[in-house]
Amino acid sequence: MRPGVVEVQDIDYPEFVLKDGPGVHPANVGRKLDHGVILKVVATNICGSDQHMVRGRTTAPAGLVLGHEITGEVVEVGRDVEFIKQGDLCSVPFNISCGRCRMCKEGHTEVCLNVNPDRPGSAYGYVDMGGWVGGQADYVLVPYADWNLLKFPDKDQAMEKILDLAMLADIFPTGYHGAVCAGVTSGSTVYVAGAGPVGLAAAYSAQFLGAAVVIVGDLNKERLEQARSFGCEAVDLSQDATLPEQIEQILGVPEVDAAVDAVGFEARGRTGEAPATVLNSSMEITRAAGRLGIPGLYVTGDPGAVDEAAKVGSLSLRIGLGWSKSHSLTMGQCPVMRYHRNLMNAILNDRAQIAKAVNATVIGLPDAPRGYAEFDRGVAQKFVIDPHGMIAA
Amino acid sequence: MRPGVVEVQDIDYPEFVLKDGPGVHPANVGRKLDHGVILKVVATNICGSDQHMVRGRTTAPAGLVLGHEITGEVVEVGRDVEFIKQGDLCSVPFNISCGRCRMCKEGHTEVCLNVNPDRPGSAYGYVDMGGWVGGQADYVLVPYADWNLLKFPDKDQAMEKILDLAMLADIFPTGYHGAVCAGVTSGSTVYVAGAGPVGLAAAYSAQFLGAAVVIVGDLNKERLEQARSFGCEAVDLSQDATLPEQIEQILGVPEVDAAVDAVGFEARGRTGEAPATVLNSSMEITRAAGRLGIPGLYVTGDPGAVDEAAKVGSLSLRIGLGWSKSHSLTMGQCPVMRYHRNLMNAILNDRAQIAKAVNATVIGLPDAPRGYAEFDRGVAQKFVIDPHGMIAA
Amino acid sequence: MRPGVVEVQDIDYPEFVLKDGPGVHPANVGRKLDHGVILKVVATNICGSDQHMVRGRTTAPAGLVLGHEITGEVVEVGRDVEFIKQGDLCSVPFNISCGRCRMCKEGHTEVCLNVNPDRPGSAYGYVDMGGWVGGQADYVLVPYADWNLLKFPDKDQAMEKILDLAMLADIFPTGYHGAVCAGVTSGSTVYVAGAGPVGLAAAYSAQFLGAAVVIVGDLNKERLEQARSFGCEAVDLSQDATLPEQIEQILGVPEVDAAVDAVGFEARGRTGEAPATVLNSSMEITRAAGRLGIPGLYVTGDPGAVDEAAKVGSLSLRIGLGWSKSHSLTMGQCPVMRYHRNLMNAILNDRAQIAKAVNATVIGLPDAPRGYAEFDRGVAQKFVIDPHGMIAA
Amino acid sequence: MRPGVVEVQDIDYPEFVLKDGPGVHPANVGRKLDHGVILKVVATNICGSDQHMVRGRTTAPAGLVLGHEITGEVVEVGRDVEFIKQGDLCSVPFNISCGRCRMCKEGHTEVCLNVNPDRPGSAYGYVDMGGWVGGQADYVLVPYADWNLLKFPDKDQAMEKILDLAMLADIFPTGYHGAVCAGVTSGSTVYVAGAGPVGLAAAYSAQFLGAAVVIVGDLNKERLEQARSFGCEAVDLSQDATLPEQIEQILGVPEVDAAVDAVGFEARGRTGEAPATVLNSSMEITRAAGRLGIPGLYVTGDPGAVDEAAKVGSLSLRIGLGWSKSHSLTMGQCPVMRYHRNLMNAILNDRAQIAKAVNATVIGLPDAPRGYAEFDRGVAQKFVIDPHGMIAA
Repeated sequence: MRPGVVEVQDIDYPEFVLKDGPGVHPANVGRKLDHGVILKVVATNICGSDQHMVRGRTTAPAGLVLGHEITGEVVEVGRDVEFIKQGDLCSVPFNISCGRCRMCKEGHTEVCLNVNPDRPGSAYGYVDMGGWVGGQADYVLVPYADWNLLKFPDKDQAMEKILDLAMLADIFPTGYHGAVCAGVTSGSTVYVAGAGPVGLAAAYSAQFLGAAVVIVGDLNKERLEQARSFGCEAVDLSQDATLPEQIEQILGVPEVDAAVDAVGFEARGRTGEAPATVLNSSMEITRAAGRLGIPGLYVTGDPGAVDEAAKVGSLSLRIGLGWSKSHSLTMGQCPVMRYHRNLMNAILNDRAQIAKAVNATVIGLPDAPRGYAEFDRGVAQKFVIDPHGMIAA
Repeated sequence: MRPGVVEVQDIDYPEFVLKDGPGVHPANVGRKLDHGVILKVVATNICGSDQHMVRGRTTAPAGLVLGHEITGEVVEVGRDVEFIKQGDLCSVPFNISCGRCRMCKEGHTEVCLNVNPDRPGSAYGYVDMGGWVGGQADYVLVPYADWNLLKFPDKDQAMEKILDLAMLADIFPTGYHGAVCAGVTSGSTVYVAGAGPVGLAAAYSAQFLGAAVVIVGDLNKERLEQARSFGCEAVDLSQDATLPEQIEQILGVPEVDAAVDAVGFEARGRTGEAPATVLNSSMEITRAAGRLGIPGLYVTGDPGAVDEAAKVGSLSLRIGLGWSKSHSLTMGQCPVMRYHRNLMNAILNDRAQIAKAVNATVIGLPDAPRGYAEFDRGVAQKFVIDPHGMIAA
Repeated sequence: MRPGVVEVQDIDYPEFVLKDGPGVHPANVGRKLDHGVILKVVATNICGSDQHMVRGRTTAPAGLVLGHEITGEVVEVGRDVEFIKQGDLCSVPFNISCGRCRMCKEGHTEVCLNVNPDRPGSAYGYVDMGGWVGGQADYVLVPYADWNLLKFPDKDQAMEKILDLAMLADIFPTGYHGAVCAGVTSGSTVYVAGAGPVGLAAAYSAQFLGAAVVIVGDLNKERLEQARSFGCEAVDLSQDATLPEQIEQILGVPEVDAAVDAVGFEARGRTGEAPATVLNSSMEITRAAGRLGIPGLYVTGDPGAVDEAAKVGSLSLRIGLGWSKSHSLTMGQCPVMRYHRNLMNAILNDRAQIAKAVNATVIGLPDAPRGYAEFDRGVAQKFVIDPHGMIAA
Repeated sequence: MRPGVVEVQDIDYPEFVLKDGPGVHPANVGRKLDHGVILKVVATNICGSDQHMVRGRTTAPAGLVLGHEITGEVVEVGRDVEFIKQGDLCSVPFNISCGRCRMCKEGHTEVCLNVNPDRPGSAYGYVDMGGWVGGQADYVLVPYADWNLLKFPDKDQAMEKILDLAMLADIFPTGYHGAVCAGVTSGSTVYVAGAGPVGLAAAYSAQFLGAAVVIVGDLNKERLEQARSFGCEAVDLSQDATLPEQIEQILGVPEVDAAVDAVGFEARGRTGEAPATVLNSSMEITRAAGRLGIPGLYVTGDPGAVDEAAKVGSLSLRIGLGWSKSHSLTMGQCPVMRYHRNLMNAILNDRAQIAKAVNATVIGLPDAPRGYAEFDRGVAQKFVIDPHGMIAA
């Protein structure tokens, strides 16, 4: 990857050591990974958060191997791995975590203390995350495999639902986490900002959690249509009517119980980028004592931001409004491990059709650059790269 | 009250109806209050949030009767009151609530839907809160008395601890709520921003919740000394060392588990008013997966604010930082009823000395204007007005 | 009602006072009820817990007016009622509560301290519950109406879904509470003991909460068929295979994540009444760290019990087994108010078809005795009495 | 150990493999433990639960090395250990857990799925727990060391508080867990059944959690005196007055908010062993909607039980009473890891004096048999074995 350019390159087969390379933190170079396994990648998805890097909105180095949404088959097992076996078909949480630190023990694998020398938390193939090699490749190493991997109980059964299961690495748990953090429960009315894959996953999760009404807002008509396809109400933010007005038309009141920000820092208003607009409108349309779940990414450094404050991640928030309404805000990466087993059980028992909701679309590895480009143009698809042709088969 | 001036005036004895007067919302005029009782005020405290009105930082009308921290004895009982009896000595939650709406049923009495025609939530003697008459008076009417009042089980026992019990109307629950929202538990390290009465109550509450170390930060040396008097660490924010540096000197790390903002929108930095400084520094010094409790008041309209954004309650927050650390923020008024009974039990059984922690100081009603002035100058005292001389006795 | 006999009798139109009558506690005689409203009964269901009284398994007096599952239209409003209005169509929680005591404030309306002189908690038309008149009648008085009643937002819309909404008074929240107490969440495997209306409601609720697999066990084939009709797995307890064996056939393991006891003290084994059998088998088939929700009724006095211990409500439980598995048990009446609003929203937005799940069947008041008899014989129906012919219309 | 006899024997220095020996499960023989470390034992306490084995109330084999409360210094580190280092001074949770299974990931280390071939959950030196060698020895192996061990941040500081810190391996978290499961919070009234070390730790923990009043009940006057020494109320169960009567004398009401059973299956009434008496009396004196925490051990097999039912762990419980009061019961081993870090922080910052509360008393390894005998006679002491004389020094 170079800013704006996604290319297919030859990379080395992984070893049980973290070698130097683009983005690898010096303190991580040479780290022994006998607790890891090597996966043959069965599915690896293109994620909206990759787009931030591709668009040059981060300090990602050239040559970074992308890909943090990984599903694969174990082909080689590190010396210290005890429970995961060769041949196991597994989902990989996009957060890398050690399973030994305080944060991991408390269920906060998204801010593991031992995998990223820069700050708590890490991910595969991501800027400022320690330099772990991404999974948009034929093979990938997963460290702390006994801890990180979720093994599917039956391989044949899993391959039949592989497109749904591929969403367990990131967007299904991430959307679900957004809904949970927003306090969605049976009978809730919910607003989801953003109809990209995470927004659709959050909307689908809100339904799965029993929401009475789920409203999805976006400027992109094609993605709104996708939201409607599985029973959501859609709010077209390019219309003249304000968001509260459109919500009132649907619900009879201009407020919802719970809001999910599935957009993040590249939020746009009708007249261009407006990074605080989703957070502020979410506080406006969330009722008193309501909650906001914020899985959409906000960053501490954004070279392409609209103003100096936004360049360091500072946004002008209507905190007085949120205070008067007793709001709670919960931010950050989803701790995938907290949810992936339950959601897997739902998928395997035909209780959750997440792939259909996000319109999962299989492509080959050579098509990845085109997938990035189309996704960036706003198609209503979630691209799943199938490097070995195992899904297509 | 006029902006900048607190005066003692004669007001009418209350009736079981809400009459027109300064700040009374038209929709509330004439409201029947047979569910209320009339209290002889035993104690009514001066609160920091009153200062915002006194300093002209709100749109409070002249003539408003202040006072939302009330403890009193029932002298007259409305027709519809069933369980509260004449002679009962009671604490009054500063939030007025109906006990019949969805919010009350869910424990969110701070945003009751039936008491303020303007927005959810109300309080006695406060701007934009529907016009309920304040309690810095000889007598006050408390509506929905069976629901709102906390009766002390034994009057004589209660009068012995009346200074502690007087803190149940607001600052003890408010400080406790701040600590609870910040996730304080056994063994936590805690930072409390602000050493005024709410900050001291939050610090005391954090200790009571089992915190290992409680650090209080302020610019006011006298108030910091008060924090030290009951075992807190104190950070003098007028020093050259930064807040993270000072915390590191105390804890060995520059971060705490939990932070409480007990300052609110009139926050000051070393060089003047800086309304976002407490929120931003709290995110800076709270560890990953930590939480912020924000009992300090942020408003939707502040005519005296430093800039246009702040005048409507918008502040520049380091949301990128908070996101990267998986922070949760919980804001708003404390729902006093959620906590006051438990805290009363702690006081009555000698488990909580809150009056000493906040340096409660008894004054007569004629001394109220002086109390407001001294409090505004930053003395380390919590003034308790004793209109009938029942405490002094 | 006499033991074993359910009759239709003329009773007086209610007044705003609790008059003496069958089962009325002396301390409740003459209680003023100006906080109440009189409802024209639109629907009042026959409940399995009524059967205990009808079968003489309690000390219920002759002449007791039964009926604690009530939906109705307000025809008269007490003097002190402020928010509920004449003409409102409402659901009545079967638990009577005051909305003023500690338990009500903490969300435990099922053990309200002010409505039953004998013990915490009350219900309409039920033995040892203070003597409140039941609702299997043309009209019924509901006390503390502003607190107790759930008003449907739109009458016409509500009448279209009245069979579903009629389940909000008891069995839908009760089943849902059982599932919540058992810890059911997205992806759970669940066992529900008993396929009567509460068991079916618990099974349906478990699905609504996202359970991956819901297994219902009973001896009654017709009721098991009803469970299958909405997607549950069914375990016929009259078969030779043990419960763990049958569960293993379904799940591949002999354990579930969560168990709900929807049977209670009249539990039967293959060879007759065995009051502890459901609790013990539930501990046997619940995994380590799992939870049991116990909405099924266990009583403190059962004149018809199989042994002396059971006559006072003591049962031989495998507590050593539960301890070794770190189980939690949560027992008691459902606090209906905690759930009914959310479940109403789900019904009104077509998200929950509870009437179909429990096979709700409308009958007239004259048919009530037959309904009791058929229900006692074990038909897979939930009878809804329609005294004014408003549903049939 | 033989039934009734505790002896000091020479045992082998541990290796990084689980070798055959008394009580070692065949499936565990030869298990490789490169993830483990060898500790030089600094403190290892005698526990009441050991007494069950010593008294022959279990099927523990002769020759079993006892000791599951271990504090020690790392002297040798397995090949796969990454974060724990030689020289680290650590507390060992008595529950052995793998840090890789579903239960560990969900915080239920007490029922880890990978350490005991017989059932979920394990412990050092305990019957039916897989055969892990106990720690009442000079050296002990701790498996999965990166996961299991809690490192004290500063060795010198830790040695100054080593008696308090030695309680982190079991009884402080176990007592604290009992109080947490019972719902103890600020202002609670609490009853703790049993004044042995776990009961005292539960009582101390209840205070630490902010309880208003803690009442401890026992038949042993010396232990009750110990409870009084740190501010508890004591109820002498050998008196004529019933437990509810004695509680009413203290509180004015015969009920508490929360009850902890710190006795377990060898419970005694005034006239001999009565295994259900503590559970039943706890339900009797716990208020409606209250909770019971049950850290006291109940077993699935008790060869010395008073009747056939009790021999398989079945006890006659007043479940009808518990149901009518909406009780919750939470049973099982404490997951030590959930609490030990927080409690360590409290100890290291002088916020918790647990050793004094339980009257910790240091003895040498040769004195262990005497310690067991005295403890069995009911002295009010918690014996801490100091095999290397490092504490005494």
